[in-house]
Amino acid sequence: MPAEKPVELTANQCWDYIRKAEIGRLAVVADQHPEIFPINFVVDRGSVVFRTAEGTKLAAALEGAAVAFEVDGYDERLGQAWSVVLKGSAVQLESIEDILASEELPLFPWQSGQKNHFVRIDPVQTSGRSFMVNSAARRHYLRGTRPLPSVE
Amino acid sequence: MPAEKPVELTANQCWDYIRKAEIGRLAVVADQHPEIFPINFVVDRGSVVFRTAEGTKLAAALEGAAVAFEVDGYDERLGQAWSVVLKGSAVQLESIEDILASEELPLFPWQSGQKNHFVRIDPVQTSGRSFMVNSAARRHYLRGTRPLPSVE
Repeated sequence: MPAEKPVELTANQCWDYIRKAEIGRLAVVADQHPEIFPINFVVDRGSVVFRTAEGTKLAAALEGAAVAFEVDGYDERLGQAWSVVLKGSAVQLESIEDILASEELPLFPWQSGQKNHFVRIDPVQTSGRSFMVNSAARRHYLRGTRPLPSVE
Repeated sequence: MPAEKPVELTANQCWDYIRKAEIGRLAVVADQHPEIFPINFVVDRGSVVFRTAEGTKLAAALEGAAVAFEVDGYDERLGQAWSVVLKGSAVQLESIEDILASEELPLFPWQSGQKNHFVRIDPVQTSGRSFMVNSAARRHYLRGTRPLPSVE
């Protein structure tokens, strides 16, 4: 098997990666333009749940919107990068039961302060790939995650 | 100054973070739905340049498209997370001069293989925020970037 070819991940593998990542990025369309937001999230019963504050741009963009959610990472031990993308729709949790259930999820905003809305992404499509990273790209990746002070 | 409030970054600070990150995510709109792709990139003369292979979904979505480009990270020493988003349009490099200039950029695809197109993101809007991460979120972030084998 050629080591450099990307490998499509199974749905189970995708969810394993999503569960490990916890920080993801959400893409939405607002006024026909793409927007992208980093989010902290949890996996709950086959969906991704996150909090967002009332009145934010993200909250406004989410009204029933189609979303794409992405996590990626790099396994230094294996020399392997991976990325997973979920597509689906964002649904604000409305019922008191839904919200109470989600309050018990280990969900913390990156910043303190009110994060009033719980939003669930119900995925209709899950895809992911893993691939060996060549040494040049790897060096770049490592520079990205752990920038060295004197690298130009 | 309340430590928990996000701080808006200046354009210079945004570009410093972008230059350090090198791995970013590109959001585009395809058929009115958001798509998101992790990309390896470089900064060249106030723009972001990356490669993509002919015939890919990303290449198709990029024809003159509005794009959003995001990088994020966490500075463990400062306990500070940051994210930067560029918005603008994607332009495929066409002239031989442009392409030759970009060939000399330290741009490597994550995977080996042909990556034929060079694409430049010309930003029309640059925004970024940094914020202190509370301890719970920080734990989550660290779990995300460096997953511990036995954490549930």
